Amino acid sequence: MLSNVLLWSLQISLLGVSLGGNVLIWPMEGSHWLNIKIIIDELIRKEHNVTVLVASGALFITPSTSPSLTFEIYPVSFRKEKIENVIKDFVLTWLENRPSPSTMWTFYKKMARVIEDFHMVSRGICDGVLKNEKLMAKLAKGKFEVLLSDPVFPCGDIVALKLGIPFIYSLRFSPASTVEKHCGKVPFPSSYVPAILSELTDQMSFIDRVRNFISYRMQDYMFETLWKPWDSYYSKALGRPTTLCETMGKAEIWLMRTYWDFEFPRPYLPNFEFVGGLHCKPAKPLPKEMEEFVQSSGEHGIVVFSLGSMVKNLTEEKASLIASALAQIPQKVLWRYKGKIPATLGSNTRLFDWIPQNDLLGHPKTRAFITHGGTNGIYEAIYHGIPMVGVPMFADQPDNIAHMKAKGSAVEVNMNTMSSADFLNAVRTVINDPSYKENAMRLSRIHHDQPVKPLDRAVFWIEFVMRHKGAKHLRVAAHDLSWFQYHSLDVIAFLLACVASAIFLVAKCCLFVFQKFAKTRKKTKRD
Amino acid sequence: MLSNVLLWSLQISLLGVSLGGNVLIWPMEGSHWLNIKIIIDELIRKEHNVTVLVASGALFITPSTSPSLTFEIYPVSFRKEKIENVIKDFVLTWLENRPSPSTMWTFYKKMARVIEDFHMVSRGICDGVLKNEKLMAKLAKGKFEVLLSDPVFPCGDIVALKLGIPFIYSLRFSPASTVEKHCGKVPFPSSYVPAILSELTDQMSFIDRVRNFISYRMQDYMFETLWKPWDSYYSKALGRPTTLCETMGKAEIWLMRTYWDFEFPRPYLPNFEFVGGLHCKPAKPLPKEMEEFVQSSGEHGIVVFSLGSMVKNLTEEKASLIASALAQIPQKVLWRYKGKIPATLGSNTRLFDWIPQNDLLGHPKTRAFITHGGTNGIYEAIYHGIPMVGVPMFADQPDNIAHMKAKGSAVEVNMNTMSSADFLNAVRTVINDPSYKENAMRLSRIHHDQPVKPLDRAVFWIEFVMRHKGAKHLRVAAHDLSWFQYHSLDVIAFLLACVASAIFLVAKCCLFVFQKFAKTRKKTKRD
Repeated sequence: MLSNVLLWSLQISLLGVSLGGNVLIWPMEGSHWLNIKIIIDELIRKEHNVTVLVASGALFITPSTSPSLTFEIYPVSFRKEKIENVIKDFVLTWLENRPSPSTMWTFYKKMARVIEDFHMVSRGICDGVLKNEKLMAKLAKGKFEVLLSDPVFPCGDIVALKLGIPFIYSLRFSPASTVEKHCGKVPFPSSYVPAILSELTDQMSFIDRVRNFISYRMQDYMFETLWKPWDSYYSKALGRPTTLCETMGKAEIWLMRTYWDFEFPRPYLPNFEFVGGLHCKPAKPLPKEMEEFVQSSGEHGIVVFSLGSMVKNLTEEKASLIASALAQIPQKVLWRYKGKIPATLGSNTRLFDWIPQNDLLGHPKTRAFITHGGTNGIYEAIYHGIPMVGVPMFADQPDNIAHMKAKGSAVEVNMNTMSSADFLNAVRTVINDPSYKENAMRLSRIHHDQPVKPLDRAVFWIEFVMRHKGAKHLRVAAHDLSWFQYHSLDVIAFLLACVASAIFLVAKCCLFVFQKFAKTRKKTKRD
Repeated sequence: MLSNVLLWSLQISLLGVSLGGNVLIWPMEGSHWLNIKIIIDELIRKEHNVTVLVASGALFITPSTSPSLTFEIYPVSFRKEKIENVIKDFVLTWLENRPSPSTMWTFYKKMARVIEDFHMVSRGICDGVLKNEKLMAKLAKGKFEVLLSDPVFPCGDIVALKLGIPFIYSLRFSPASTVEKHCGKVPFPSSYVPAILSELTDQMSFIDRVRNFISYRMQDYMFETLWKPWDSYYSKALGRPTTLCETMGKAEIWLMRTYWDFEFPRPYLPNFEFVGGLHCKPAKPLPKEMEEFVQSSGEHGIVVFSLGSMVKNLTEEKASLIASALAQIPQKVLWRYKGKIPATLGSNTRLFDWIPQNDLLGHPKTRAFITHGGTNGIYEAIYHGIPMVGVPMFADQPDNIAHMKAKGSAVEVNMNTMSSADFLNAVRTVINDPSYKENAMRLSRIHHDQPVKPLDRAVFWIEFVMRHKGAKHLRVAAHDLSWFQYHSLDVIAFLLACVASAIFLVAKCCLFVFQKFAKTRKKTKRD
């Protein structure tokens, strides 16, 4: 005879051997896809069957076949070039209008058009699935247990609700940063939690806090106006009056792609799991030729330089300025660069179309990483304990570098205004000032010293939702409240009304007693 | 040549083999000690050396010797009986003045005296260490790496700061529930997080939310008045102006003895770890005679009944009422009871001075648990998936049972007002209505299905603090803000002032222009 717990343990371990569930992935682009791919690989390793929805116009997803991985390609009303153009437009607009609390309004107005384009593409992707009856019928028969989606790309939640399955979000940060706050119900006290894109840290002066406060209000406004049209789309798709935010609030788990090695500590909720750096892994050996070049650096070591996959090339002038700075350091430099070879290129610098970035950052000879500040790259640097020179450009990059600067493991240079000497100084500082390496190593130790690795935690909670058909015990009751109830405004108004009534009554009574008394005195006097 | 990460991994694993650090434990009483004892045992198992400070008047700690466990006994100005009396007084006052949002004020006034007594004993315990120079010198030589304390018993933090070592709290809930909020900086939105001792759940009507709002304000007031005297004690002890709360805010980690199987989900911070049920373990075989009695229950199974260690006996009348109810169920009953044998005791009920509660709750024949609602007992019931009849009496017990009722695994009866039929109905309901067992099993599954077991997580974070000399990366910047900065009141006031100034200026300008215009018109008319 077995006790309940033993039975349950047995069940769990039996499930552990071969759970073999079916997982549905909502399509996403760019680094979002690269990150989800790591989770998919781990799910497959744990014997789950994964189906990825792919729009015919998808840019980053390259369908391949394997027994546990299915790509469900469906037609959409736009071509690959459309997405390419939207991304190009997005990057360019951002580069030309870098937002700060003071320039947020200009940024908002310029970005509004780009975001509308992005939403048009997103709606195309949504329609491609939701209006494709044959595909929806096929998915309904797919016996999926969970859907995984990045809320930056809408409609995954609608599909999950239509299929009657729970859904999980994987998210770096939300558009206009307000999704976690308004839809996830996470408190964001503006007094010490810097608003996303503000480039502020958790140590704020009074003026910083004013800027931060305004940033939050502006971003709230952006979200409320620019994402508003989705409310009617969601209501129509789900056949009942609802909003984008209300639907997002039904996510079982939010897998946030940050952690406290990178993020400033802030309040969160039980269904938020911070799995930043889940893609990080030990370095593999370098290609022979590259290893020889690296070894030739001797005791000076190497510098790894990449500006990511979104910005392909620099202006000739900028490339020349950078090359001449790099030529002056004793380290060897590996630069991922596709443009025209700069005339000032030093003999210590070698250009590459592509570099095995993680393997280079994990190489014992690596002294510094010059980066645009994408989250994935920064996490690889944290993982391997490498100090950084940040050359941020758009999206969360300036914010990411601000975080690393505050934590003492990076120096920032401004691509638009920097001189060759500025760039050189920055590189020399992170290499020669030991505090940068020490701080980078401290972050690395924090990253490695977690009870469970980020990827394992991400997969644990996906499997948890599959095992229990959700994770309702982690969902706060705040989701059932309106905004004025949430902030207790009705309660405060009621209590103030009570106090006012009480004061009024007491005053009335006093007046009555006083009048009575005055009358009696008058009468007595008369008598 | 090894990469940084490999070196670090090697270091960690070397540390893992035999870290052998020195841990100091601040004394605590009652179930607080029983809980910390589990952590101590695990620390010793992991080859750490643990030193427990014990006041000569301690009630619960029974010093024993072992190579890795030292009890440092120090004299205090009071006897064992003093603590016994304070506890007795505490329990009695609470039993006679059960607090609710509407009776909180009476409760506060009655408890104020008891709390002052409790603080007097606490000060005696503090003085016993802090003013004992020989002991302090010995501790300073002890090479401790961390101090573990329950903030309900003050001064552990002072000792840690004086020794220059980090400290960690283990806490079920704080006195007046405001320590986590004011000192730990955890947000507690009163709209959906029920105040401790309010017996409310996270599903609140408007009136409930009003009650909850008032509860929070009352508890804030209680804390501010009753704990105020500690501020000067802390300032004097640390030799600088400080407060109890400011010092508590320096805790590296807060090990909260609850989890979302028991607690309603609510916001928290990165340095809060929820390790509820860390003492739970699989059942061991029962003593032979007890097992025979249990087996004699046949398919009906057994009921386990204990009112905890604090309340020894019931009135004769109450015991008789309960016994007659129990006599009517087909189950066998094991009742932990030391009083006079009730005349109405049925042949199915057996009385015990002490029962192996966890082993009984983990027995496959167990159908229900009748409990006073102490956290430890409830967690054993959750662990083994046993539905409960709650007979709450004082402290967090009514709250605990309210949680279990809301989660559908318990029925509550009121010890003061219940009839024999009420009690019988409650027991029959949890046994015969399958929803109670189903919900208890659901909570059990949630409890068992965590990425890391509660005890392992508790020990992980203690060791983390030892390895890294703290966990500052998890500490929110809110600690550096005053209350009006935290709530952005200065920012709001500034922005309102700006808006008011702007309106004033615009109005002034308009007035000026209007006057000018009026004058010109007048002049034109005159001309």
